[in-house]
Amino acid sequence: MQRFGQVIGIRAEHVEEYIRLHADVWAGVLKKIAECNIRNYSIYRYGDLLFAYMEYHGDDFEGDMAAMAADETTQKWWELCMPMQKPVEDRAEGEWWKTIDEVFHTD
Amino acid sequence: MQRFGQVIGIRAEHVEEYIRLHADVWAGVLKKIAECNIRNYSIYRYGDLLFAYMEYHGDDFEGDMAAMAADETTQKWWELCMPMQKPVEDRAEGEWWKTIDEVFHTD
Repeated sequence: MQRFGQVIGIRAEHVEEYIRLHADVWAGVLKKIAECNIRNYSIYRYGDLLFAYMEYHGDDFEGDMAAMAADETTQKWWELCMPMQKPVEDRAEGEWWKTIDEVFHTD
Repeated sequence: MQRFGQVIGIRAEHVEEYIRLHADVWAGVLKKIAECNIRNYSIYRYGDLLFAYMEYHGDDFEGDMAAMAADETTQKWWELCMPMQKPVEDRAEGEWWKTIDEVFHTD
């Protein structure tokens, strides 16, 4: 299993809408997340930053992420979410959410 | 089970030492974390911010946190860590790490 921490900005004027939307995520989006072997996925907010924590239980992360990106329902969800988000400047090439380094873990 | 997200600042001049220290946390500190019913505890770093994710599996969070704070080894560990940390201004009264709101979760 691989754990991931990620960060992205949230535009102040969209915080309330983002929270409302994520309190009731579409069933098709949740289904695809599960099909793509993501488990125990949480997003937290600190001011204008969102932090994500998730666990990947598959054995082909790139393939699963490509399958998620190809899913029509997920694409429609992202069309809603992406304009509310503001990716951080120092993310890696090709990233939307920036992957951040684990400093500590204990089971 | 309760999930927690937390955030705290890290002083730029102490980032390397903090990372080094947390790559090899004292056994007594880890033991106390487990005894206090904390599981699946991770800390990630984004620049001068640390983001923590943890799961609490007990039924007396305040009591367990008090037991942790009373533990001599944990106190010595905190004496090392706290000067490297810079709590965020908008934390709640009595907080060191600021508890942040969950926006989304899926199992």
